[in-house]
Amino acid sequence: MNIKSLIRNVPNFPKEGISYKDVTPLLLNPEAMDFYVQKWANQIDSPIDKVVGIESRGFFFATLLAKKLNAGFVPIRKSGKLPYQTLQESYALEYGKDELEIHTDAIQPRERVLIHDDVLATGGTAKAACNLVERLGGEIVQCNFLIELSFLEGRNQLPGREITSLIQY
Amino acid sequence: MNIKSLIRNVPNFPKEGISYKDVTPLLLNPEAMDFYVQKWANQIDSPIDKVVGIESRGFFFATLLAKKLNAGFVPIRKSGKLPYQTLQESYALEYGKDELEIHTDAIQPRERVLIHDDVLATGGTAKAACNLVERLGGEIVQCNFLIELSFLEGRNQLPGREITSLIQY
Repeated sequence: MNIKSLIRNVPNFPKEGISYKDVTPLLLNPEAMDFYVQKWANQIDSPIDKVVGIESRGFFFATLLAKKLNAGFVPIRKSGKLPYQTLQESYALEYGKDELEIHTDAIQPRERVLIHDDVLATGGTAKAACNLVERLGGEIVQCNFLIELSFLEGRNQLPGREITSLIQY
Repeated sequence: MNIKSLIRNVPNFPKEGISYKDVTPLLLNPEAMDFYVQKWANQIDSPIDKVVGIESRGFFFATLLAKKLNAGFVPIRKSGKLPYQTLQESYALEYGKDELEIHTDAIQPRERVLIHDDVLATGGTAKAACNLVERLGGEIVQCNFLIELSFLEGRNQLPGREITSLIQY
């Protein structure tokens, strides 16, 4: 199965000069979805308690991974979206900063956690997500991405982490 | 299994006087997630081509339902988030209006579609989602919600639709 044929390049989105990787053609194909979720699951060789998905395209695959691994699903969301008690982490944007949140009861100390997002770009959101999980006492087993934009060197923000991605550009 | 015990009431969120229904405790429980996705699937007795999830809490269950039904998954998103060609529908908010979008290649004419969101409130977003699907030629088999806030009478916005919900308040 050629996964790159299921990722659409959209030129100049969200702004001039950026070639956006659109995963929606992959989502339309249930056989491909099954195939790649299984491929991810095969890379995990120890029990996972929680799969964390980062808002909002990270949710597409994180719930499926949680089901496959028989784990709970935890959403990390942008500031102000989660209704209960939260921890917050800021991360840098090109101009300014933004904030991610996690519910304080989402992860228990020593739980084994898989962090998932659709794209690893500069690594800022993934780093903030890792910090949130570790502040709650979770142990991060792997950071797992569909797409890695290697030229942005996001791995440099995640030293010592186990990182996997299905497609690299 | 008592599903109401897995939905947390958060008083005065997102604003004074509103009792928010927080589904995140349910998401933490993989057995409960399996149980309710199966329960939804049991209510569908004909093939489904596409499951449509409405941004962003609708994504939590819609991908799982798509997998269970061996259907494609289609996100309906807030304005400006989908990168490819889209159709738009406006819907009323308490003050002002907002807009939903769908990719024009997400649904083919005569495809059988299940629309899912976590909560049926006033019905405005569900009605806009139905319009988008039908403008692409899709046939709506069912509108499917986790939670129905019956006192807001959202069903009145969806006359003639088959509507199911697991929990009513």
